Parts: sequence; structure tokens; C-alpha cells
Amino acid sequence: MTDTRPDTRPSLHTADVVVIGMGIAGACAAIEAAEAGASVLVLEGASGPGGSSAQSGGEVYLGGGTATQQALGVEDTEEDMRAFLTAALGPNADEAKIADYCAGAVDHHDWLVAHGAEFHHKLWDTPTWMPGDDSGLMWMGERAQPYASIARPAARGHRPPAPNFAGNLLMDALVATAQKAGVTLHCDVKARSLIVSEGRVAGVRATEFGEEREYLATGGVVLATGGFVDNDRMLEQWAPQQVGKDKVSDGRDDGSGIEMGMDIGAAVRRMHQTETAMLIIPRLAVGAMLVDGDGQRFINEEVYPGLYCHAAVHHRRPPVWVIIDEKGIEDVPESELWGMQPMHAAETIEELAADCGLPGDALADTLRRYNAGARNGEDPQFGKSARWVRPLEPPFGAYPTGAGGPDTFNGLPLKAQGFTLGGLHTDLQSRVLDRAGEAIPGLFAAGRCTHGLHGEGYISGTSLGDGSFFGRRAGRGAAQGTG
Amino acid sequence: MTDTRPDTRPSLHTADVVVIGMGIAGACAAIEAAEAGASVLVLEGASGPGGSSAQSGGEVYLGGGTATQQALGVEDTEEDMRAFLTAALGPNADEAKIADYCAGAVDHHDWLVAHGAEFHHKLWDTPTWMPGDDSGLMWMGERAQPYASIARPAARGHRPPAPNFAGNLLMDALVATAQKAGVTLHCDVKARSLIVSEGRVAGVRATEFGEEREYLATGGVVLATGGFVDNDRMLEQWAPQQVGKDKVSDGRDDGSGIEMGMDIGAAVRRMHQTETAMLIIPRLAVGAMLVDGDGQRFINEEVYPGLYCHAAVHHRRPPVWVIIDEKGIEDVPESELWGMQPMHAAETIEELAADCGLPGDALADTLRRYNAGARNGEDPQFGKSARWVRPLEPPFGAYPTGAGGPDTFNGLPLKAQGFTLGGLHTDLQSRVLDRAGEAIPGLFAAGRCTHGLHGEGYISGTSLGDGSFFGRRAGRGAAQGTG
Repeated sequence: MTDTRPDTRPSLHTADVVVIGMGIAGACAAIEAAEAGASVLVLEGASGPGGSSAQSGGEVYLGGGTATQQALGVEDTEEDMRAFLTAALGPNADEAKIADYCAGAVDHHDWLVAHGAEFHHKLWDTPTWMPGDDSGLMWMGERAQPYASIARPAARGHRPPAPNFAGNLLMDALVATAQKAGVTLHCDVKARSLIVSEGRVAGVRATEFGEEREYLATGGVVLATGGFVDNDRMLEQWAPQQVGKDKVSDGRDDGSGIEMGMDIGAAVRRMHQTETAMLIIPRLAVGAMLVDGDGQRFINEEVYPGLYCHAAVHHRRPPVWVIIDEKGIEDVPESELWGMQPMHAAETIEELAADCGLPGDALADTLRRYNAGARNGEDPQFGKSARWVRPLEPPFGAYPTGAGGPDTFNGLPLKAQGFTLGGLHTDLQSRVLDRAGEAIPGLFAAGRCTHGLHGEGYISGTSLGDGSFFGRRAGRGAAQGTG
Repeated sequence: MTDTRPDTRPSLHTADVVVIGMGIAGACAAIEAAEAGASVLVLEGASGPGGSSAQSGGEVYLGGGTATQQALGVEDTEEDMRAFLTAALGPNADEAKIADYCAGAVDHHDWLVAHGAEFHHKLWDTPTWMPGDDSGLMWMGERAQPYASIARPAARGHRPPAPNFAGNLLMDALVATAQKAGVTLHCDVKARSLIVSEGRVAGVRATEFGEEREYLATGGVVLATGGFVDNDRMLEQWAPQQVGKDKVSDGRDDGSGIEMGMDIGAAVRRMHQTETAMLIIPRLAVGAMLVDGDGQRFINEEVYPGLYCHAAVHHRRPPVWVIIDEKGIEDVPESELWGMQPMHAAETIEELAADCGLPGDALADTLRRYNAGARNGEDPQFGKSARWVRPLEPPFGAYPTGAGGPDTFNGLPLKAQGFTLGGLHTDLQSRVLDRAGEAIPGLFAAGRCTHGLHGEGYISGTSLGDGSFFGRRAGRGAAQGTG
């Protein structure tokens, strides 16, 4: 992988395959295309590869009996994985893409490992956003109701061997693999528009420090530019609920690939869907009651935290609080509590409610019903596992969430954050479709500039997952010139 | 207005202004254009004019002190109307369009009356979908909290003098006015694509019983083709939550105008938003508790029924039921109860809950809290007006809603129904914008093929309202060739 200086580069380049963006989708597309024998040029707008993928947690959602699952004794089937994803990413998830993704997940796991990914044979067993160690497998709420009744639970969150944000390890490995495979990477090159010749996408117009460049592709062009959370104009147009919220990205998810596609007639899908995360400690929430502004629980606190954050922000009256007791806080390992003490504490639930701006009588009723079930080790309302159900006793504590209520907590901003899930309409071969459903010749796309598996739900690992999986398809298709 | 037979019509027509669609937006565009001195041709795909507008309730949301309001002693201001609509149509309503609409509402009222609309000086005073008499003014939930605290309440639902579905009266009047103004209507002509010449929309290609037609427009083309609820492909693409639900339309809301615009680069907005209605009797619900599958109230039952239907279907766990008592049923006038007896009745709330598939303990808590407030004439949770708050006493009754629970009730299907709210991005002059925000020369649009005032909320009267208001703008702009 060579990268010469701009002033020495010619203004015209030609390759079999031109990939735009070197996040996980672009990297996997480039590798596949190069391994298929194509010459591959990747354009990256930043000064180095990795994109938002390198700044992510690094989880890849894989299952159906991967080698990592098997080594850990985790039993799983393709059918269970498919049923779980259809439910957890729904309603209105893309069932065809999910089916295809699940059918290929075991192979995809092995491909990732063969190309540099590492998943230690170590399972993180409790709810978390990101494990604080080098665990290679984690749960994404598969054991939580209602999902546990829909599909036999299996841990499917595969992750690189580093604590917390581990996406950079995965991306470093894939970028190195691409380099070995002969992929050429041009950084600081910003793609501007697609070149169409005789009804076929034939290349990309770009700029490099203000200089115009043309990249011609004889096989095909792969868009892998990421989502549009950093483009406020597009957010206002497509996903206004995300305006003013924090952005989960590398700062370059500007939607440019989506708009380049639309400029030549590409269709888009699910442009209003967004992922939602907040500063809620999963290990704390699972033993607590997550309540809305009416003092009501609204979800099983054991599900993947992105799901309860989404429900809190988009479906409930604010403010949403985590209501817990002393033992609940003590039960959280020091390393996962981040030193956080509750914002409010009180001897009675009514006092706590008043401190939180919640209705005291309703919260008291909620607590009474929760405790009545908990005394039998049950959660009749949402079916939380017995492991996490225990009557809450005074004194009580409350943690804010960022869904209404205070703006900061322990010096940290409390604000919903997220990224976009909608994008170009692609088929199972990663070909970009026009509004009539016809493939646009020569154009492929993958990752968050496309609409992937998702309906209204989101589970971590499905972005790196569909990006890498369909990125490979895109690279293969472009190398074969089959688009 | 002439309408000759297809076989006698030439294949090429020319007019100053060509309007596609003769619902309320097209009719108002045609009238304004004709009165501005333009020759106007309207293409209507159906065999007669009226569109979905003629099959609607006929409400037009107007205020700020209209002549009808004044005659009834209803005090109102532009500011209150704007504040109400921004809240009730939000979050993420189009504040610029709302401000413009409210600023022009008094004049628009008079224009509609001058062009044939009739609004009797008679106020319907209780919650309803559509009054059962010839009332010319109705409430749209303006008196309900939280809206009553946001804007001084005023009844703003202006309507034609007929019981229930009255849209045909309004459309008959506007169509007759268009005829007098010299507008030419070609029915059974289906617009297929826009003709662009030298960067400007110059006409429309259409078919008439299979024969190809061209309609050239020297001033401009107005798209007024309605929404896309009848196009399942577009629903699946843009608003999958509406797939499988019932459609509120004349059967011809096929999204064709939206796609014709997109074909030449138009931007769209809010394509996922939909209106939601269900078989809930507003006069019954307002004196009752509307509860979700967790046995919880979730909204003030006094708000415009479309708002609680939307909340029920899109934001709460099913099944949603109306919980009432004997006196509550007796209080509903015979004419509004449609002879409906509750599906379940029981002496205790726990028995009733069991019949409805609701959690008995939670529903009992909800009832106890509701009654505690009601004994003081208050609704501490949602602020329902004292007029509608009364402790509910056994025996209790339950009505299903179509949001979960039984599929039919008293022989009627129980199913959420609705129409689409997203569409072409237009400016305040009804010019269609491209994705960069630039007006597409010669192209105007109004009505439900555009994105109007709406964010996530919907209030009846705002579709005929923004369709007629911005339809007029479209007609004027096209007549002046200012697009």
C-alpha cells in the first residue's frame, strides 16, 4: 500500500476497482477485490485509514456456531441468530439481508480471523456497552425477554482483544491485510461525484488539497463512506430527531456517498432510523428499575442497552431515571461503576421521586409491583431473568440518563448520542439499486452509507457486521465487473 | 371546464399552467392561476375531480380570528394558532411553513369562502372525529393539556355544512369555482413524467386510455397528486410501519407526483411520517382511561384523537383498551356511540383486566390513582379538563381499539389506518427544491405529495389546510412563471 505526496501524484488514476472510504466496509471490499485479482485503489478523505470503525467498540455480531462460540461451548444455530436479529433490529428489519447475513456468519467469522481479526476465547458474562478486558465474546441481550423466548440465547458479540473501545485493533489488522494484498490507499482524497459513462459508473471525481483528480474504475466503484450523522443539513432533511444530539462518528460521516449515489438515481431506505446511546451503566441498570416520566417501567432492563436508550428517548415521556438501592450499587463491580454515586438518594421512594421530578404515587406503585414479583424472583411485567431481580429496599438512589432531567452528571454531559442507519438501497450482492429496483451498473456500496439489516432496532456489532459482510460482496462484485 | 372524449382529443396540449391532480391542492392552484389570467389545464387520473379531499371529513384548520370564529365569539390570535400547531404537529414540525400558514390563515379563510366554501356559524363543543351535524367549527383538542398551557385555546376546525364526511361539499364548491374561472379539466389522464427543456420543467407526458399525450406548460407545472399510501412499494421503502395497515385515501394516492419530482432531482422530506386513526369513539374515550398493554394511561384522552391513536400504535406496548364505567357510556349521546356496547364488562377491575389481557395489579393501581385525582376533579398525570374527569365506578367496561387485542368489534374491522405525510420538499412559494435547496425551475407542488406542516404529529384539517393554502401559492407562482 503506497501513498505518495499530492504534488507528485498525477491527476488521473485507473484501477479495476475504486473504493471510496477506508472504514471496515471499504477495507473488506478492497481485500476481497484484491484477492480476486483486481487492482484496487481506495480513496480516504481523512489523513489515515480506519474511519468511524476504528473509533468504535469493535464488536462484530456473528453466530450460528462460529469457531469462537464453539471454543467457548456456546451452542448456536443460524435459525436462532436470524430470529433474534429479526426481532431485536425490528420492527421492519430487512429480513432478506438478515437471512443472508446469518447464513454466511460462520464463514464470515473465519474470513475475518484469516484476515487478521482476533477474538479471544473468553466470554464477558454480564450486561455492558463494552467489556473492560480482552474478552472475545459478549452478550448483546440475547438472554433477555422477549428475545429469549423468540430464539435460543447465544452470546454473539465477537470483539477484538482490548478493553472498551477496541475497533482500532480490528481496523489495524484489516488495513495491514489490505496492504499485503496490494491495495493502494490514497489518503486526503475527497470523492466528490461519480463518473457515469455509457450508462455505467466508470469512476470518481475527487479533490486532493484542492486539486482535481479523476479515478477511473474498469470493474466498479464501491461506496463505503459511512453514514450522515455529521451532516446537519441531511439530518434535518431525513432524521430531524437526531438534530442537536451528540454524534457517534469520526467526524467525517458526512453522507457524501449517499448523495453521490442519489445524484445518479440511487434509491435510499430507512433514512430516519438512528441508533441511540446514553450514559447509562448497563450493569447498574439491569439490577434496577428504569422508569419514565410517568414513574413507569417500560422495558426489560436486561436487553441490549441501545434498545432501552432508544425506547427512552423516542417512545417515553421524560425524564427517564435509573432507580436503584444500596445493594444494587454495591453489586456493580468498581471497574464498571466509573465511581458514580447516585445523583439523588432518599429513605422513601416518594422523597426520591420528588427529587427526580417523578410522580411519587405512581413510582411507589411501580416499586410495590416490582418488589412483589421480585420476592418470587420474577418480573411479571417484562420477564427480566431471576439473576437480576431482587426487591429494592430503602435507602433508594437515582441516576439520571440524559433522556430529560439534568444535563450533566458528575461533570459528564448527559445527552443522547447516536448515528444514522439509513442509506443507499442495495441488494444482497451489494449492488446499488435505483428507485425502480434495478441495479445501477458499476456501482456497489456497503456499510453505513447503505441501509443494512436494521429496522427500528439496533444491536451493537451489526454495523461492523453488515459493513464487513456486504463490503466483501461489494469488492467481489466490483472485481468481477458484475454490477 | 370542458371534457371531450379521448378519441377526439389531440395528443399535444399547451397551456400557461398545467396542474396534475384535482384534489384540493390542484383545485386551489388552478383557481389562483386562472384568476391571475393564465390558461389552466388540470390532468386528473380518475374519471372525475375531487380526489381524496372529496372523501375526507372536510375540515380545514384555520384560525387567528377568522370571520367564522368571530361570529361565534371565539377569540384567537395568529401567535396562539402557531404555538398550538408547532406543538401538536411536532416534534420536528416545519416551523417556517407553520408561521407562514398561520400568518395567512384569516385571509385564506375568506378566500375559501369567497370561492365557495361554507362554514356555518355553529360550534360542535365535544371531542369527535367528525361532527354528526352541519356545525361549521369544531375543536381539535386545543383545550387539552399540554396544549392549553402552550397556547390560549380556540376552536379552529372549520368544516362544510354536512354531518360526518363533508369533504365532497367543499370539493364540489371549489371544482365549480374552477369551472367558472375557465379552468379546463381532463379526467382519465394519467401523468407519467415531467418534460424538462433547457433546465426548466416545460410540461408533462401522460397517457389517456393507453394513448400518449403531451401537455406543455409555458408558465409552470403544479404537482398535486396526493400522498403514497396506495403504493405498497413506496410504503415499504419509506414508511414500512404503514404496510399492512388500512389506507385512508381515494385509492389513487400512488405517490406518482413524488416520484416524477424525484426523477428530475427533487428532494423529499419526512417520508416516514404517517397519520394514524382507529375505531375509538372520542366522546367515549375522553371520559374514560385509555390504557396500554402495561395497564398504564399514556396520554390525555382529551387531545385530538389522531394524536392518541398515533401514540397507541407507534409508542406503546399493545393491546390498548378504552376502560370506562356504566355512567361513562350513558354520558355519550346515542348518535355518537354508534350503538356500541363494551366488548367486556366486569364487576372488578381485575376481572376486566383478565378479559382484556391486561395486568390486573397494574390496571388496578392505574384506576386507583385516576380515581384519587378524579375525586378532586383533577387529572394529575395528564391534566385532563375537570369537565371530563370523574371517578370510574364498577361495573367497568372495556372497548378494544385496534392497537393489539381483537381484530374485529361489533362486526367492524379493528385496524389502524392512515395516510402518508412526507413528500416533495417545497419552499414557502411552493417551489419544488432539489437536494441542494435550489428551486427546480418551472416546478411547483402542494398537498400531500409535498411535505407540509407536519413533524411527528397530525391534527385533522391541516391537510386540506396546507394543501389549499400552498396550492394557491403554487398556482400563482406557475401563472407568473416565477418558478
